[in-house]
Amino acid sequence: MFVVKVGGGAGIDVDNVLVDLASQREPFVLLHGGSDETNEVATKLGHPPRFVTSVSGYTSRRTDKETLGIFSMIYAGKRNVEIVSRLQQLGVNALGLAGVDGRLLEGTRKETLKVIEEGKRKLIRDDYTGKVEKVNVALLRLLLENGYVPVITAPILSNDGEAVNADVDRCAAAVAVALEAEELLFLSNVPGLLRDLKDPSSVVSSIPKAKIDQYVGFAKDRFQKKIMGAVEALDHGVERVVFSSANIPTPVRAARSGAGTVIS
Amino acid sequence: MFVVKVGGGAGIDVDNVLVDLASQREPFVLLHGGSDETNEVATKLGHPPRFVTSVSGYTSRRTDKETLGIFSMIYAGKRNVEIVSRLQQLGVNALGLAGVDGRLLEGTRKETLKVIEEGKRKLIRDDYTGKVEKVNVALLRLLLENGYVPVITAPILSNDGEAVNADVDRCAAAVAVALEAEELLFLSNVPGLLRDLKDPSSVVSSIPKAKIDQYVGFAKDRFQKKIMGAVEALDHGVERVVFSSANIPTPVRAARSGAGTVIS
Repeated sequence: MFVVKVGGGAGIDVDNVLVDLASQREPFVLLHGGSDETNEVATKLGHPPRFVTSVSGYTSRRTDKETLGIFSMIYAGKRNVEIVSRLQQLGVNALGLAGVDGRLLEGTRKETLKVIEEGKRKLIRDDYTGKVEKVNVALLRLLLENGYVPVITAPILSNDGEAVNADVDRCAAAVAVALEAEELLFLSNVPGLLRDLKDPSSVVSSIPKAKIDQYVGFAKDRFQKKIMGAVEALDHGVERVVFSSANIPTPVRAARSGAGTVIS
Repeated sequence: MFVVKVGGGAGIDVDNVLVDLASQREPFVLLHGGSDETNEVATKLGHPPRFVTSVSGYTSRRTDKETLGIFSMIYAGKRNVEIVSRLQQLGVNALGLAGVDGRLLEGTRKETLKVIEEGKRKLIRDDYTGKVEKVNVALLRLLLENGYVPVITAPILSNDGEAVNADVDRCAAAVAVALEAEELLFLSNVPGLLRDLKDPSSVVSSIPKAKIDQYVGFAKDRFQKKIMGAVEALDHGVERVVFSSANIPTPVRAARSGAGTVIS
């Protein structure tokens, strides 16, 4: 059993991943993003994306109620339907789920966001984000045992029954842990963790799990959350986490046989 | 077992329906629309809705590839997530599915639409619509038996594995037939089938199944497809179809105890 997260950034060849997934023999679960298209549609709808930086230095999408609606449109609507129908076309019996469905992914909504804006600390209270804390693994097993391939995305469900934005990389880690998956693959538009962001040939090819702390410094922006996801997964039983490109030939096979950055 | 379709037209109080559904003891399946919000968002995105009239006189949404994407955003994304999370908040273990998920709803894509435009017949070839022909009832039973309440919407899956727009009223009829439901309720912004469209007190209170042909003439526009759905359901074993208002107190209970138009 392996878990794949394919990103939603600009220039990620999702179809390339789906075609390769359709030829895999082992069971898998797919998670996907949708950030780039969410930004585009939000801008067209007159509600352009904003990002906030927390006091601890992490960047995340500012998700007011209107943004949550747009986020749901793209992640759980357009992208999920596109991926599920394409997999069906490829012979995979895909079934799309947002985290809210059957309480698949639950977490606590952050009541306040502590952010830095123009050098000042600020509290935001109307944000709809949370972090996944609980996976309904019985639902995933029920579907897998009956031949369905779950295709999962955000939003997730808060403890108060509200839909909230959550980082899909960390959702992927939580799903991999819950399913006791051997491998967790993050496929995106970079070939792996780079020593030098400007040099694609500077991929760190392998990192022993125990030494991951030494490499966290290389991770920038959104990659930080992938690393957090990787650490969470490895700490809870996943054997191998791979960061690799979605855009190379047979990207799933490549990642499973050592392309990109392998942490184990 | 009963099946409810709540419309997506302007002025339909969906929350009123969800609150009442949460107090029902019998198992149910919910289907929902999203037409009004799809029109709004399509207009904001610079791709305003268009409707075509078939040579046989039925009106339907012109669904080119871009419209299909917007349709998926609202139906399978925003509205489905909102309804599922609200039901979860009300204590119902709702699980959202588009027709593409696990091949829940399958049908044939109309290769060409024969429409009348400005008095002339015209063929449209790039339309993504279809009619549901097959329900994956095993998936619905699997979910129901395990305590999940399916919340279903379009798009459905074509035989070629493409996502296509389909009339959700007729999807509801197909689901009710497949599940051998006793009752199928259509809740919308009208109190029932009206003898006089301008007079809300002219509701036809009951129609014997055998005499439905005499009443089809009263149905206008979108109501025609509800009637087609009703006939399909009644012809295939559903005992009672009700057209009633979503906006009256306890609208589900009211419809189940005879409010609106009851066809049996």
